[in-house]
Amino acid sequence: MTKASAAVALITLGVDDLPRATRFYCDLGFEKSASQSQTSVSFFRAGGVVLSLFDRRALADDAGLPATPRAPFGGITIARTLPSREAVDDAYAHALASGATALKPPQEVFWGGYSGYVADPDGHPIELAWNPFFPMRPDGSIDLPM
Amino acid sequence: MTKASAAVALITLGVDDLPRATRFYCDLGFEKSASQSQTSVSFFRAGGVVLSLFDRRALADDAGLPATPRAPFGGITIARTLPSREAVDDAYAHALASGATALKPPQEVFWGGYSGYVADPDGHPIELAWNPFFPMRPDGSIDLPM
Repeated sequence: MTKASAAVALITLGVDDLPRATRFYCDLGFEKSASQSQTSVSFFRAGGVVLSLFDRRALADDAGLPATPRAPFGGITIARTLPSREAVDDAYAHALASGATALKPPQEVFWGGYSGYVADPDGHPIELAWNPFFPMRPDGSIDLPM
Repeated sequence: MTKASAAVALITLGVDDLPRATRFYCDLGFEKSASQSQTSVSFFRAGGVVLSLFDRRALADDAGLPATPRAPFGGITIARTLPSREAVDDAYAHALASGATALKPPQEVFWGGYSGYVADPDGHPIELAWNPFFPMRPDGSIDLPM
């Protein structure tokens, strides 16, 4: 069967306080779309993917799922890759100053990189990593070697 | 403060059965990296972002979080955008044939698009949507109007 390559075009984080979450991702340097964002949803350019923020209950309802209470670990992480260990340290400190919660301070990790984790104001884990094996594009996305 | 735009470079889904999840995303048309994937992790080109699959408990541990049991709704959705309603219907049927669970059949939605949801074999919700307001790039990512 011939088919086009599949893409993840958009990631949506369910949030409890949209203005708070929107401020947080703006502070982190994500570019909010003025024309597409509305009072009920925020859209950001996030490299090669769109990041959106939407009310957690409304998102569960949209997906046809019960809006169960937030678990400590939701089963998904998102990651920013940074060009150096120092850039990871800076991004980690900046995230904490912007209202993130520390999960794991940046450290050398088993796979040969340097990585730390913070949680956003709604508890979504964000990895901040330097990965010497993944070339980066100018927009911050990864040019994954095949 | 001047700073570079931030990017989500990588999304990692915690999974209980890595070979099963890897087969599922291959079936959906995601291109697996042969050189970067290992027995413990699968990496895919997914448009402008890298999709990775990793053991759910190991992922929680990596993030410094307890590996709490899977909730019906983890708080995050990922979305593929397709070029037409028909392409959404096709992708929905193909996902179910590949082992996904139906969450919401494709239908006209309040924001003016056409959207359905399936759950992957680990319960992660995937939206399949046609969005007439978001221009698509050739790689399947969205060129978000600002």
